[in-house]
Amino acid sequence: MGDPIRVTVWNEFKHEKHNQSIADIYPDGIHGAIADGLRKIGGVEVGVATLDQPEQGLTQSTLDGTDVLIWWSHAAHNEVQDGIVDRVYARVMDGMGIILLHSTQGAKIFTKLLGTTGTLKWRESGEKERLWVVAPGHPIAEGLDEYFEIEETEMYGEFFDIPTPDTLVFISWFPGGEVFRSGCCFYRGKGKIFYFRPGHETHPIFFNENVRKVLGNAVKWAKPGKLPNITLRNVNVQPLEEI
Amino acid sequence: MGDPIRVTVWNEFKHEKHNQSIADIYPDGIHGAIADGLRKIGGVEVGVATLDQPEQGLTQSTLDGTDVLIWWSHAAHNEVQDGIVDRVYARVMDGMGIILLHSTQGAKIFTKLLGTTGTLKWRESGEKERLWVVAPGHPIAEGLDEYFEIEETEMYGEFFDIPTPDTLVFISWFPGGEVFRSGCCFYRGKGKIFYFRPGHETHPIFFNENVRKVLGNAVKWAKPGKLPNITLRNVNVQPLEEI
Amino acid sequence: MGDPIRVTVWNEFKHEKHNQSIADIYPDGIHGAIADGLRKIGGVEVGVATLDQPEQGLTQSTLDGTDVLIWWSHAAHNEVQDGIVDRVYARVMDGMGIILLHSTQGAKIFTKLLGTTGTLKWRESGEKERLWVVAPGHPIAEGLDEYFEIEETEMYGEFFDIPTPDTLVFISWFPGGEVFRSGCCFYRGKGKIFYFRPGHETHPIFFNENVRKVLGNAVKWAKPGKLPNITLRNVNVQPLEEI
Amino acid sequence: MGDPIRVTVWNEFKHEKHNQSIADIYPDGIHGAIADGLRKIGGVEVGVATLDQPEQGLTQSTLDGTDVLIWWSHAAHNEVQDGIVDRVYARVMDGMGIILLHSTQGAKIFTKLLGTTGTLKWRESGEKERLWVVAPGHPIAEGLDEYFEIEETEMYGEFFDIPTPDTLVFISWFPGGEVFRSGCCFYRGKGKIFYFRPGHETHPIFFNENVRKVLGNAVKWAKPGKLPNITLRNVNVQPLEEI
Repeated sequence: MGDPIRVTVWNEFKHEKHNQSIADIYPDGIHGAIADGLRKIGGVEVGVATLDQPEQGLTQSTLDGTDVLIWWSHAAHNEVQDGIVDRVYARVMDGMGIILLHSTQGAKIFTKLLGTTGTLKWRESGEKERLWVVAPGHPIAEGLDEYFEIEETEMYGEFFDIPTPDTLVFISWFPGGEVFRSGCCFYRGKGKIFYFRPGHETHPIFFNENVRKVLGNAVKWAKPGKLPNITLRNVNVQPLEEI
Repeated sequence: MGDPIRVTVWNEFKHEKHNQSIADIYPDGIHGAIADGLRKIGGVEVGVATLDQPEQGLTQSTLDGTDVLIWWSHAAHNEVQDGIVDRVYARVMDGMGIILLHSTQGAKIFTKLLGTTGTLKWRESGEKERLWVVAPGHPIAEGLDEYFEIEETEMYGEFFDIPTPDTLVFISWFPGGEVFRSGCCFYRGKGKIFYFRPGHETHPIFFNENVRKVLGNAVKWAKPGKLPNITLRNVNVQPLEEI
Repeated sequence: MGDPIRVTVWNEFKHEKHNQSIADIYPDGIHGAIADGLRKIGGVEVGVATLDQPEQGLTQSTLDGTDVLIWWSHAAHNEVQDGIVDRVYARVMDGMGIILLHSTQGAKIFTKLLGTTGTLKWRESGEKERLWVVAPGHPIAEGLDEYFEIEETEMYGEFFDIPTPDTLVFISWFPGGEVFRSGCCFYRGKGKIFYFRPGHETHPIFFNENVRKVLGNAVKWAKPGKLPNITLRNVNVQPLEEI
Repeated sequence: MGDPIRVTVWNEFKHEKHNQSIADIYPDGIHGAIADGLRKIGGVEVGVATLDQPEQGLTQSTLDGTDVLIWWSHAAHNEVQDGIVDRVYARVMDGMGIILLHSTQGAKIFTKLLGTTGTLKWRESGEKERLWVVAPGHPIAEGLDEYFEIEETEMYGEFFDIPTPDTLVFISWFPGGEVFRSGCCFYRGKGKIFYFRPGHETHPIFFNENVRKVLGNAVKWAKPGKLPNITLRNVNVQPLEEI
């Protein structure tokens, strides 16, 4: 079984405090619902952290004890301090896995890690989403059917401004004529990044069994193994030696 | 820990029978050395199979009971029957992992799975190879240093005619001025393929600790998980239904 | 402007001869419509070839004089001789571009070049297709809008069994809930391959202005330039020389 | 022939002013040597710009009139103002091509566009570099041999912390046992990025005929074509319409 994977679920935790209908859906916060799903899958040790905590919930010590960080933000992207973003970035470069959810495509950490703008089309209409598996051999698709559906969600549509994923796992279909690259794996530095589209705050997305299965799979995929001994700084190897 | 991964190591097993110096290096055959290395790593259940066995060692039942097939061939590429190649191919499409070693770049199964010619440069001179990790977050690089070396080997050089790997894990350096894409991951069908360059019969490559570590990692990476419910045949989904 | 690109449009040319309604849509054959579209775009020198010609329309001399081959087949995949397939394959490895249209995903040349089964979902219902550009900087997307539509077509849906494209240019949306990787670039050998989904024989797809624009762009992308001096055969470079 | 490609060669222009031996190699600056090479290839309209000019040489008007920007920086990475970096970044997202040379892997614009640290190994010893073509069908490899050499250069070695390139065109070999991903294409936003390793200031790299050929090819590859009509901002497409 190995040691449990140490997961920290970070949430800006704004909508749930300011909007009763969202609080009704997520009485323990979006982070609480995600953490609950992961604990049910097992093999993990899950902590939660939120923006309103000291050091915005992401102390160096918390990050150092985190194998995989899950990030949800939307309304408060700009409240996250640059120093905290830099801290998370450094940990990903150093091997920590990170799962970037839904509207996190607009967060500083998304742009800093991936470089592109993350812009997209969107529509809030409680419509259906169907996510097709396009990488059936990938560990994040384990245990799914050829597609799964979310009954009511916000739509995100292409063009989605991202780097070409190292692996594209899901493509979403929406009834209004849109498609979206919904599950995207990226290797960056020594770390692994998974962007996963579902997750709007006005729907109980994080109670969906398939969404929970994907997050469980993604955590296993993103965790750092026994990393090779590589240092991410410029290293002067003079002089030229005979070999 | 989960169930052990069922590995079959297949070897044409020609050189070891016809050349005493090679037999001295691999008294139990190349397959024997590979199997021994995997057993020492653990978590696997290893069988061996060779060309001179009934159905060339690869009965349907053997393949059905194999999670990951390791393939070594060189002198006898053309003795492998097309029907056996088709059988292996079908299992990879259906999810079996396969590790294609060294001169297997000239085998029918390589070309059938990958499409390209697999041609390359080569030189037999017992020279040093240094393999650099270029995907430090990938599970196949776990537990390695930034590079590892093989003291004496045959050289393979670019241009190596392969499809762009889904992930390029290693690039080799050789003293004569050559480089080579030495560790290449490919998703195909529902299966996973890893091409690994080292493995010449005239050197004890498969006793090298780092080579063994890579093969152990590759077996874990290539094994099929709980595959999504996808069928690889054309499916008519008429009529168009409202959704 | 440079020399014109020498294009050969190859068509099995069966449906148009055996089905009046298809002949009415394509009075000059599917090849005729494609050739007409390319000639209107300009910069090309277009020939056509069909299965019923000597050597199935693909003599060595024809192929040697072709920069980009466009292929349409459906009913007669298995009538194409293996020797002809090998001849086309060899030319692609050697640098000829090839554009594989629609049902060609079931042709021998598709599988030989790409390795996977090419299987997919399909439905004939004359429904709408919307193709989204997901690689806006790629030359095949030049001059398009963010998406374009085909009013009536056959549906193809995922899971589409292909290797990961080197570049994914289009993703299609269909009203029945399906998506499809519709424009896929692959580098293979010294050649370039573009798979393009649209093209069903019962609809006037190849008269669509955007389809024609895509084919014109694809021909320019796929043409061999002044290829680097690389030979696709195993080359022995002994002995090891000091460098 | 089409309109000439409008290229701006930007150089920090420090070493050439402060070090006589470098000034002797590049009497017109590194930018001057690059511009001279491009003009000899033709099909371009080349301007130069340097850090000591107003707005650091990169006014909005200059960038708006630039199809492809070539960037060389080393000693003065941190003197480049963030506002100028943002301006260049915005233009790349909007379709301008950019060629990032050599030590630019440490520049702000590199990290902002690509996300990773760009760190690597290095050694200054005037050693030989051999660049192998690993994407023979790619336009940046046109007209080269299977490899080309630079007689004396600074070494850069893996691990090079970059995102997986969309296409890897060159891998370098160095005599001390190092390899390097030396020619890397990336699609980002609507723009195209080419990172090219050679270019150390203490050697006449930019007078090398093959380096000049690569830069000429890269400019043609990176230029924006007639870009599809896509806007890089979040677009609300409510309400859901029937389609």
